[in-house]
Amino acid sequence: MLTVYVITTGGTIEKGYSEKHGSVENLDNKIDRYLRLLRLPDMAVSIVPLMNKDSLDMNPEDRALVLGMVRALLKENAPIIITHGTDTMVETGTFLERELPSLDMPIVLTGALAPLGFEGSDGLQNLTESLMALQFVEPGVYIVMHGTCYPVNRAKKDHGLGRFVWSEGPQP
Amino acid sequence: MLTVYVITTGGTIEKGYSEKHGSVENLDNKIDRYLRLLRLPDMAVSIVPLMNKDSLDMNPEDRALVLGMVRALLKENAPIIITHGTDTMVETGTFLERELPSLDMPIVLTGALAPLGFEGSDGLQNLTESLMALQFVEPGVYIVMHGTCYPVNRAKKDHGLGRFVWSEGPQP
Amino acid sequence: MLTVYVITTGGTIEKGYSEKHGSVENLDNKIDRYLRLLRLPDMAVSIVPLMNKDSLDMNPEDRALVLGMVRALLKENAPIIITHGTDTMVETGTFLERELPSLDMPIVLTGALAPLGFEGSDGLQNLTESLMALQFVEPGVYIVMHGTCYPVNRAKKDHGLGRFVWSEGPQP
Amino acid sequence: MLTVYVITTGGTIEKGYSEKHGSVENLDNKIDRYLRLLRLPDMAVSIVPLMNKDSLDMNPEDRALVLGMVRALLKENAPIIITHGTDTMVETGTFLERELPSLDMPIVLTGALAPLGFEGSDGLQNLTESLMALQFVEPGVYIVMHGTCYPVNRAKKDHGLGRFVWSEGPQP
Repeated sequence: MLTVYVITTGGTIEKGYSEKHGSVENLDNKIDRYLRLLRLPDMAVSIVPLMNKDSLDMNPEDRALVLGMVRALLKENAPIIITHGTDTMVETGTFLERELPSLDMPIVLTGALAPLGFEGSDGLQNLTESLMALQFVEPGVYIVMHGTCYPVNRAKKDHGLGRFVWSEGPQP
Repeated sequence: MLTVYVITTGGTIEKGYSEKHGSVENLDNKIDRYLRLLRLPDMAVSIVPLMNKDSLDMNPEDRALVLGMVRALLKENAPIIITHGTDTMVETGTFLERELPSLDMPIVLTGALAPLGFEGSDGLQNLTESLMALQFVEPGVYIVMHGTCYPVNRAKKDHGLGRFVWSEGPQP
Repeated sequence: MLTVYVITTGGTIEKGYSEKHGSVENLDNKIDRYLRLLRLPDMAVSIVPLMNKDSLDMNPEDRALVLGMVRALLKENAPIIITHGTDTMVETGTFLERELPSLDMPIVLTGALAPLGFEGSDGLQNLTESLMALQFVEPGVYIVMHGTCYPVNRAKKDHGLGRFVWSEGPQP
Repeated sequence: MLTVYVITTGGTIEKGYSEKHGSVENLDNKIDRYLRLLRLPDMAVSIVPLMNKDSLDMNPEDRALVLGMVRALLKENAPIIITHGTDTMVETGTFLERELPSLDMPIVLTGALAPLGFEGSDGLQNLTESLMALQFVEPGVYIVMHGTCYPVNRAKKDHGLGRFVWSEGPQP
């Protein structure tokens, strides 16, 4: 039985439609509800709801909070998924990589361009892929989106294309 | 074969999630895509995309445009559904009722509190109900939402409850 | 607040996929789970699970049971929906009409050609339409399917077309 | 851009509900329609519809056909996914492993316990996982189901549990 922790921080993947305000907002945790749609008999997935923020609003204190939680969970010797807004996902991942120089577990950041539960959402795909990728990769920090697992220092969000792409340098 | 016209004007029912802007917007017509999910072998439903506006942004010129299209379609001697934002649905309906004193067909306004294709959307329910209600009601202007068919002068949106309720006076 | 009773008897609308047997079967009640997807603030819908049978397996005892339950619920002075397999829906409806000559409430039979929860299912559409139609029709027995409300003596299932059609005689 | 071939052979994952027969059957290819729901900007996925059979009906000729197609596609130097019924997935995989002793690409068999498009289906999860796993595994034959990637000689279907489990021997 593989134990996996999922730290949720908000971002588009967890946004919901507020009927009161007529807008999409980070209000409630949605990750647990969607992970339950997956069949994972060999995994024990523990969800740790940490914050529920648009990643453009994440500040150094928020990232310190993420780092603290990652450090605490790493003591359990289990891989970690962090759900996160895509706009600053690379920034948070780079920060974690720098602060955790001797990782012995993979940390995977993932998210979505359209919220879970909205038509055409990529959220459940990215969660599913992350749970598979972390079983194979070396310790380190990764971004998993849309069928690709990037080492965090090789990913960047292309706002024009509306997706992640490989940053400069040779691809694996 | 019953002919029905559906004039689409925008509103929440047709909003979509813009990945570029991270917000819900009235961009594309969605009504046709969702009506195709219904089986209606005895109906010929013609969709007339008129505008795609948040109903709070509808102005007198927009309502004149709706009235003009309704007048044109009434010549076909067929009932009409108008999909519309909920915030000013009663206002548009009241305007149509006043301007069309001798209707001989029913006009049904409907919409949604959550966009078509978002989890928990009421859009397809309201469309389905409208197509059934218009087969039974007398000529006049109605609002169909959430299992209830209101004569337009008896409906009001309760923003606190987030739904339509009967306005004062005895219920049928 | 309109009270409505929904008697469930099985049929395709409630079939589920049995992973053990690799087939579709009438096992569990599904109607309640799908009705909860509808917003019906002005209705109190009570579900009465009576049996869970393929309608080809319904025998005179089963129909007597349906009749008994209908008689009991009619004392509540509320309209009744019966979810039922389509193959013998007309037979059960005709039986009820004959046995209940002085109805003062509408009874609507409905069902589906594809089970609730299967892609392309017509089940929720038919339930939604039934809840609207029963607010308008005179006392009597009806079949509501695919946008049409048939008096029971005017409906027949066309197995070739895979849907209900008007039986001979002038349409309303 | 990673090229991947998906050979479809039928099985539960591709079953559909036949309204005519009231049963689930292998009739049409569904894999392409569901793969289109995934965002895979870095992959070129080519679907090769080979047959559409319940895997209990697959005979030696069918398996020879699968082998022939695999051999042909291996010339393209790309990983291969085979969608397949779960009942004889291990048998087909073992056959391929025996007949292809010097593989230099991974071959992943996957399928589902509930058809694509049925509520609670595991089909899209398994496809998503397969597309991720094949990017990491050594050449060889694998079964990917429910979050686990099994070397084919280590997987067996547990009919009581209704899922795949590790066969005897130490787990990785």
